[in-house]
Amino acid sequence: MWLVGARGAVAVTSVTGLLAVRAGLTGTAGCVTELPQFSGRGLPDLADLVVGGYDVVGTPLLKRAEQLSAAGVLPGPLLAAVAGELAEVDKRVLMLPVRATAAETVEAVIGDLTAFRDRHDLDALVVVNVASTEPRPADHPAHADVTMLRGHLEVLPPSALMACAAFEAGCAFVDFTPSAGVRLPALDELARLRGVPYAGSDGKTGETLIRSVLAPMFASRNLTVRSWSGVNLLGGGDGATLTDPGANAAKTASKERVLSEVLGYRPQGSTRIDYVEELGDFKTAWDLISFAGFLGTRMRLEFTWHGCDSALAAPLVLDLTRLTAAAQRANRSGALAELAFFFKDPAGAAPAGLAEQWSALVSFVSALDAA
Amino acid sequence: MWLVGARGAVAVTSVTGLLAVRAGLTGTAGCVTELPQFSGRGLPDLADLVVGGYDVVGTPLLKRAEQLSAAGVLPGPLLAAVAGELAEVDKRVLMLPVRATAAETVEAVIGDLTAFRDRHDLDALVVVNVASTEPRPADHPAHADVTMLRGHLEVLPPSALMACAAFEAGCAFVDFTPSAGVRLPALDELARLRGVPYAGSDGKTGETLIRSVLAPMFASRNLTVRSWSGVNLLGGGDGATLTDPGANAAKTASKERVLSEVLGYRPQGSTRIDYVEELGDFKTAWDLISFAGFLGTRMRLEFTWHGCDSALAAPLVLDLTRLTAAAQRANRSGALAELAFFFKDPAGAAPAGLAEQWSALVSFVSALDAA
Amino acid sequence: MWLVGARGAVAVTSVTGLLAVRAGLTGTAGCVTELPQFSGRGLPDLADLVVGGYDVVGTPLLKRAEQLSAAGVLPGPLLAAVAGELAEVDKRVLMLPVRATAAETVEAVIGDLTAFRDRHDLDALVVVNVASTEPRPADHPAHADVTMLRGHLEVLPPSALMACAAFEAGCAFVDFTPSAGVRLPALDELARLRGVPYAGSDGKTGETLIRSVLAPMFASRNLTVRSWSGVNLLGGGDGATLTDPGANAAKTASKERVLSEVLGYRPQGSTRIDYVEELGDFKTAWDLISFAGFLGTRMRLEFTWHGCDSALAAPLVLDLTRLTAAAQRANRSGALAELAFFFKDPAGAAPAGLAEQWSALVSFVSALDAA
Amino acid sequence: MWLVGARGAVAVTSVTGLLAVRAGLTGTAGCVTELPQFSGRGLPDLADLVVGGYDVVGTPLLKRAEQLSAAGVLPGPLLAAVAGELAEVDKRVLMLPVRATAAETVEAVIGDLTAFRDRHDLDALVVVNVASTEPRPADHPAHADVTMLRGHLEVLPPSALMACAAFEAGCAFVDFTPSAGVRLPALDELARLRGVPYAGSDGKTGETLIRSVLAPMFASRNLTVRSWSGVNLLGGGDGATLTDPGANAAKTASKERVLSEVLGYRPQGSTRIDYVEELGDFKTAWDLISFAGFLGTRMRLEFTWHGCDSALAAPLVLDLTRLTAAAQRANRSGALAELAFFFKDPAGAAPAGLAEQWSALVSFVSALDAA
Ligand SMILES: NC(=O)c1ccc[n+]([C@@H]2O[C@H](COP(=O)([O-])OP(=O)(O)OC[C@H]3O[C@@H](n4cnc5c(N)ncnc54)[C@H](O)[C@@H]3O)[C@@H](O)[C@H]2O)c1
Ligand SMILES: NC(=O)c1ccc[n+]([C@@H]2O[C@H](COP(=O)([O-])OP(=O)(O)OC[C@H]3O[C@@H](n4cnc5c(N)ncnc54)[C@H](O)[C@@H]3O)[C@@H](O)[C@H]2O)c1
Ligand SMILES: NC(=O)c1ccc[n+]([C@@H]2O[C@H](COP(=O)([O-])OP(=O)(O)OC[C@H]3O[C@@H](n4cnc5c(N)ncnc54)[C@H](O)[C@@H]3O)[C@@H](O)[C@H]2O)c1
Ligand SMILES: NC(=O)c1ccc[n+]([C@@H]2O[C@H](COP(=O)([O-])OP(=O)(O)OC[C@H]3O[C@@H](n4cnc5c(N)ncnc54)[C@H](O)[C@@H]3O)[C@@H](O)[C@H]2O)c1
Ligand code: NA
Ligand code: NA
Repeated sequence: MWLVGARGAVAVTSVTGLLAVRAGLTGTAGCVTELPQFSGRGLPDLADLVVGGYDVVGTPLLKRAEQLSAAGVLPGPLLAAVAGELAEVDKRVLMLPVRATAAETVEAVIGDLTAFRDRHDLDALVVVNVASTEPRPADHPAHADVTMLRGHLEVLPPSALMACAAFEAGCAFVDFTPSAGVRLPALDELARLRGVPYAGSDGKTGETLIRSVLAPMFASRNLTVRSWSGVNLLGGGDGATLTDPGANAAKTASKERVLSEVLGYRPQGSTRIDYVEELGDFKTAWDLISFAGFLGTRMRLEFTWHGCDSALAAPLVLDLTRLTAAAQRANRSGALAELAFFFKDPAGAAPAGLAEQWSALVSFVSALDAA
Repeated sequence: MWLVGARGAVAVTSVTGLLAVRAGLTGTAGCVTELPQFSGRGLPDLADLVVGGYDVVGTPLLKRAEQLSAAGVLPGPLLAAVAGELAEVDKRVLMLPVRATAAETVEAVIGDLTAFRDRHDLDALVVVNVASTEPRPADHPAHADVTMLRGHLEVLPPSALMACAAFEAGCAFVDFTPSAGVRLPALDELARLRGVPYAGSDGKTGETLIRSVLAPMFASRNLTVRSWSGVNLLGGGDGATLTDPGANAAKTASKERVLSEVLGYRPQGSTRIDYVEELGDFKTAWDLISFAGFLGTRMRLEFTWHGCDSALAAPLVLDLTRLTAAAQRANRSGALAELAFFFKDPAGAAPAGLAEQWSALVSFVSALDAA
Repeated sequence: MWLVGARGAVAVTSVTGLLAVRAGLTGTAGCVTELPQFSGRGLPDLADLVVGGYDVVGTPLLKRAEQLSAAGVLPGPLLAAVAGELAEVDKRVLMLPVRATAAETVEAVIGDLTAFRDRHDLDALVVVNVASTEPRPADHPAHADVTMLRGHLEVLPPSALMACAAFEAGCAFVDFTPSAGVRLPALDELARLRGVPYAGSDGKTGETLIRSVLAPMFASRNLTVRSWSGVNLLGGGDGATLTDPGANAAKTASKERVLSEVLGYRPQGSTRIDYVEELGDFKTAWDLISFAGFLGTRMRLEFTWHGCDSALAAPLVLDLTRLTAAAQRANRSGALAELAFFFKDPAGAAPAGLAEQWSALVSFVSALDAA
Repeated sequence: MWLVGARGAVAVTSVTGLLAVRAGLTGTAGCVTELPQFSGRGLPDLADLVVGGYDVVGTPLLKRAEQLSAAGVLPGPLLAAVAGELAEVDKRVLMLPVRATAAETVEAVIGDLTAFRDRHDLDALVVVNVASTEPRPADHPAHADVTMLRGHLEVLPPSALMACAAFEAGCAFVDFTPSAGVRLPALDELARLRGVPYAGSDGKTGETLIRSVLAPMFASRNLTVRSWSGVNLLGGGDGATLTDPGANAAKTASKERVLSEVLGYRPQGSTRIDYVEELGDFKTAWDLISFAGFLGTRMRLEFTWHGCDSALAAPLVLDLTRLTAAAQRANRSGALAELAFFFKDPAGAAPAGLAEQWSALVSFVSALDAA
C-alpha cells in the first residue's frame, strides 16, 4: 500500500489503525472486508500489508497522530502503544519527487514504486491517493487520448500524474479523492493497456452515504422529491482545502450526482460545504428533503450527521487496498465498477443505490475467490 | 376491495384518492404499483377496483373527507369534484355485524362478502384491515390450531375474526394494522387450507421505513450501532387509539424488530409513541442513532420525519389490493412474504432491509406475470 | 398606513389580516400590540388604520392573496369573506411614480402622500417599506450630509428616496427591509429636522429572532460559543430577490450582527441564504451552535425553524404602524430605538437581546401613554 | 462547601474543576459568577472555598474522576495535575451517618457540620445537595408545620433531613436536585427561624434552560404554542436513578412548569426522560414546538441539545456556593428567589423567564455588595 498524502489525516488514521488492529489493541469496526461475507475469500491479510508513501510536507507521522489524538480521533493509549512502529513506517514515507519536467517526475515515481515493490517482495502494489483535493484542471485534448498524452504529461494535475506513473509501473491505483486522478479517459485507456485495475473516485463517508440509501427509498415508494438541500460544516485539513472554490465545486458536484442518478430527475436545492475550523475532523452535515406523496401532500425529512471523517475513511482505505490487490492478482484491469459501494462518484458503469452496490461487491469478491 | 375500518382516515384517503386518480384529477405519486417496473405486468387496473366495507361508526365518508381536507390531507377542490361518487361508495359501507356468538358473526360476514362479490361479479376479493389497532389478545391454545379454533372462535379479537371470515369466504386478506389479525398460526393454516393468499402486518409508512434503509447501511459498513432511540408524536384517530397501552405496545414492538433483524443485535434505546392531538394526521418522528466506527470513535445520526400518515398509507392500500388480487388469481395461497416491502412486521420469511424487499417485490410481480 | 411594495406577500398578508381581524373572522395571534401589556395605552385602533400604497407591478391584491392562499398562507374561506374590501384597498394602491429626475420623483411622492392624508383626514401617516430588498448602494459623501444630499438625490436607492419623500411630507417611516432606507446618516438628520420619527431596519421574524434569545442565554451562562453556522432555505418573492448577491449580502450581515453584539466576540461560522423556489413562503432555517463549557467540554445545540415568513411579518407591520403613529402624535422625532424588538438591525442605540428589547418596548408605550 | 453526594458526577466535576481553576490549569467558562458583572462585588473567592461532604458509597474521588475522564468529561492531563489535592479532599468526604432514629441522625450531621466549620474556621458554610434524585415522599401534615415536624423527623426523606440538620447547625442550604429537600413548607419556616438562607431546586442545565428563553420569545410575540413535546436521553448515574418512575415524575414535572408559567396556559405534549446507558454523561434533548401565528398559520421549531450534564452543572455548584455564602454573611434568611436563574423549579416568588431571572441575579449581587 503506497499512500499519496501519507502524512494527512486519513492516511495517518489508516496506518495507526492498521498497526493497532494487528497488535490486537482494537477491533475492526468500520472495516467492510472484515464482515463475515468476506472472510475466507482470499483477500490479502491485514497482517501482510506493507506501507510506504509520499507527501509534500515532512511532519512526522507520530506528530500528526498526536494532533489527531488531541482532536478526539485516535485514542491516546492506543497511540502510545504503536508509536515505535509508526516511526518505522515514517521512514518509508518519501517527499514527493518534483523534477524539471513532468516526464522526469513520472520516471522518478516509477523508480520509487519499483524499488519499494522489490525491496518488500510484493506480488501486488496498490497506490492510494489520499492527498489534498485539487482544483479541476483545464480541459485538454490529451486528457482523452493516451498517445497524445505521452507527449504532454504536463497537462496532468498531480493526482493524474501519479495515476499515470502507477500504471506505467504496473501498479493498481485507488483514488479516494474527488481530484481528476483516474477520471481522465486517457488514464482509463492506459490502465487497460498496462493490464492493471483501478478504483475511484471520492470516498463515500457521510452525507452522500446517507443519500445513497434515502434516495432509493423515495424512488421505490414513488414519492416525488421536490427539493433536497444540504450543508456540510467541517474543519480539518480537508475543510481548509475546500475553501478553494475549485476544489469545493469538484466535491459538491460529486455529492449531487447520486440524487439525479437514483431519482431520474434533479430536485431543487443545492449542496454546500463550509469551512468551520473549530469543528476539526468532526463534520456535521444537515439535509432537508421536501417531498410530495399521494394527492400532492407535502412532507419533509431532515437529518443531521455528526461524523468523524478520518475514522470513517481510514478503514475504507484498508478495504480498498485489499480488494484492489486481490483484483490485480486475479488479472483484472481497468475500472473496478464493483467497488462503487465505496465511492461518491464511482468509476465504470455502476448502480447508484447503496444496496445494489453492496450486492455487486459481494458478488465481486465471490467471483475473485472462485477464479 | 373490502375495507374494514372504511370510515377511518386511511380508508377515506384511499377511496377519495382512487376516485380522483380515475377522474384524472391527480397523479399517482406514492403508488408503488404505478412505477414503470410494474406497468404491463397484469395487475388489476385501478379503474376495475370496486369498493365496499365495514365500520363500527356511521360518519358519512364525505364528512370524514371534509375533516381530512380541513386538516390539510385532502385538497378541497379535488374533494368537491368526487363528492358524488364518494356518496355512492358510502352506500356500500355496512355496519360491522355483531351477532350473539362469534360463529354467527363469522357467518354474517361471509354472507356480506359473498353477496358483494356476486353482485359486482368480481373474480377476486381482497379484504383489507384498516380498522383501529387492537390490544394484543391473551394467549390461547386455539390460536395455534385451526381445528381447535373452529370450536372457539370467541377467543379471536375482531381483526382475526375478520381474517377468519374472509378465508372461509374464499377471499384474500391484507392486514395493514399491527393487530393480531393473520399473525395467529391457526389463521395461516386456514388460509392455506382454503387456498387463499394473505399479506401483513402493519403498513410501513414512516420511522420504520427509514429504519429499514438506514439499518442496512450501518450493517454493510460494519459500523456498530450503540443506541437507537425514537419518538413518534401523532394525533388523529390512530394516535388516540395508541394512548391505550396495549395497542401502543403492539406498535412499538413491530417498530423495533427491523433493527435487531438487520443488525443481528439489539442496540440500546427504546421507541415511543406519544399522542399529541393537535398534530392531527401529520406525524413527527425523531430518531437518534449513536454509533461507533474505526478505533471506537463515537458518531451520531439523527433524523426528523414530518409525514402525513394517511397520505403515505392510502396509496399502499391500493397497491396491496392490486398485488394480492393478482396473487389470488395466480392461485397463491398463504403468506405473501414477497410483499414485505410494505410492512413493518412482514408475514412469512422475508428479508428485513428495504432494498432486498424491493427486489423481492419486483421478482414477485414478474413471476406472477410469467405464470 | 402607506405600504411601499403593497402588492408583495408581506403587504397583502397584512392587509388581508387587518380586514379579517376587523370583521371578527380571525384572532390577533402574532400581533404584539394586542397583548394585555399594551391594551388601553392609547395606541391607534386597528379599526382606524386606512391603507394605501405603491408598487411597481399591477397584480391585483386579490390575485396575490389567492396565490398566498394556494400556498397555505391565507385560509381560503377568510379570503373569500374579505374579497370585496380588498378590492377597495386595491384602488388606493398606486404605481410608484418615476420622473425624469430624483427630485421630481420626490415631489410626486410628496404629492401622493399629502393627498392621501388630506383625503382621509389622518392625524398621522406612516410609510412602511415592504418592497423587495435592494442591493447595497455605492458609498457617496452626500449619504452623510443632508445639505449636500438635497442637491444629489440621484445617489439615493429607491428605499432611501422614499424615506426622504416621507420625511419631507411630514410622514413617519418604517423600514421593514434590509435595504439602505433610513440607515444613511443624512436621512436620520432629515427626520430630526422635519420632526418625524422612524423605525427600522429589517423585520426580525425567524432565525435572528431565535438568535436574539439564545445568544443572551450563552452569554449569561458564561458559555463560550465557538461556532455558530446557519442556513436559510426559502422560496417566495423575497427568496428570489435574495439570489442577487448584493441583496443576499445585505441580509446575512444583518443576521450576524446580533451574535457579535450580544457575545462580545464573533464566533466562527457563516450564515447562508439559499433560494429553493418550491418551499414558497415557508422558510426553513437550520443553525448549529458549537460551544465550550467548564473544563473546555465541547457541546452543541442545533435548531430547525419552519416558519411562514409572511404570516410572521404581517402582524408586525400592523404593530409598527400603530406604534410609530403613536410616537408621531407624541412628537417623537428621529430613530425609535425602543422598537428594536421588531428588527434584525435596529436603528438607534438599542440592546441586542430580545428580552431587554421587550422591556424597552413596554416602557416606551407606557411613556407615550403617560405623555 | 459541604457536598451531599460528594462522590457523584456533579460533585467530582465541581471539585476537580475548582482545583484546576485554582492551579491556573483551565479557564472559568461556565462559571456565571466569573462574569464581569460580578467581579469586585464581594463574593467569596474560589480560592477560599474548603470542600467536605457526605456520600453513601466509598469510591475514591480520584477513581470517579478517572471514570469521568474516560467518558470525555474531564481532560486527562488536568486530572493528573490535581490528583494529589483530590486525595486531600477525599479525606474530608465522610460516610453519611445513619443512626437508630432520624433525630439521632440529625444530631450526628449537626456534629459533623459544626466540627468542619470550626476546624476550618469558616464564617459561612453552605450545604449543597447533589445526591441522587429521590422519589417524591408520601404527604404528611408535619411537612407543613415545623413544630409538629420536630417530633416526626422520620417523615422526612433524606434530602429534607439534611436540610433540617443544616439549618439547625446554622448552615445555608442549596438543593441542586429535584428531591423534596427544602420544598416542604416546614423547612422554609425552619430556615427563617434559624436565620439562614437557602436556594433551590433542581439545577437548570439543559432542556429547561432553553425552554426558559424560548417560551418568553413566543409569549412576547403573541404566538400561540399549540404543543411542546420533549424527550431527554441520558445515561450516567443520574439517568440510572431516573429509571425509577417516582424520581422520573419529580423531574419531568419540574421541566414542564416553566412552560405554563411563562405562557399562561399549558400547551399539549409531554416531556420524557429515557435512560440510555451508553450515552453516559452526555445528554441529548430534543423538543418539538408547534405554534400558530397570524391567521392561524401553523409553524414549528425543533431543537436538539447535546450537553454534558456534569460540565454544565459543576460550575453552577460553585456559583451557588459563593452566592449563598455571601447571602448568609449579609444575614439573608429563607428562600433566595433571586437565584431562580440557576433552577428549574425556583424556591420563592420568582419570574420564570431566564432574562428576568438574570436581571434579578445582577440586582441581588449589587444589593449584597452595597449592604
Ligand atoms: N475523510 C473523508 O471522509 C474523505 C472522504 C472522501 C474523500 N476524502 C479525501 O481524502 C483526501 C485526504 O483528506 P484528509 O482529511 O486526510 O486531508 P489532509 O489535508 O489532512 O491530508 C492531505 C495530505 O495530502 C498532502 N498532499 C497535498 N498535496 C499532495 C501531493 N500533490 N502529493 C502528495 N501529498 C500531497 C498534504 O500535505 C496532506 O498531508 C482529501 O482529498 C479528501 O477530500 C476524504
Ligand atoms: N396511516 C398510517 O400510516 C398507518 C401505518 C400503519 C398502520 N396503520 C394502521 O391503520 C389503521 C387505521 O388508521 P387510521 O389512521 O385510518 O385510523 P382511524 O382511527 O382514522 O380509523 C380507524 C377506523 O376503524 C374503525 N373501526 C374500529 N374498530 C373497528 C372494527 N372492529 N371493525 C371495523 N371498523 C372498526 C373506526 O371506527 C375508524 O373509522 C390503524 O390500525 C393504524 O395503526 C396506519
Ligand atoms: N417576510 C418576512 O419575514 C420578512 C422579514 C424581514 C424583512 N422582510 C422584507 O420585506 C420585504 C418584502 O418581502 P415580501 O416577501 O413581501 O417580498 P415580495 O417579493 O413578495 O414583495 C415585494 C413587493 O415589492 C414590490 N417592489 C419592488 N420594488 C419596489 C419599489 N421600488 N417600490 C415599490 N414596490 C416595489 C414588488 O413588486 C413586490 O410586489 C423584503 O424586502 C423582505 O426582505 C420580510
Ligand atoms: N448534572 C446536571 O446537569 C443536573 C442538573 C439538575 C439536577 N441534577 C441533580 O444532581 C444530582 C447529582 O447528579 P449526578 O449526575 O452527580 O448523579 P450521580 O448518580 O453521579 O451522583 C449521585 C451521588 O449521590 C450519592 N448518594 C445517593 N444517595 C445519597 C444520600 N442519601 N446521601 C448522600 N449521598 C447520596 C450517590 O452515591 C452518588 O455518588 C441528581 O439528583 C441530579 O438529578 C443534575
Ligand atoms: Na436535528
Ligand atoms: Na432537526
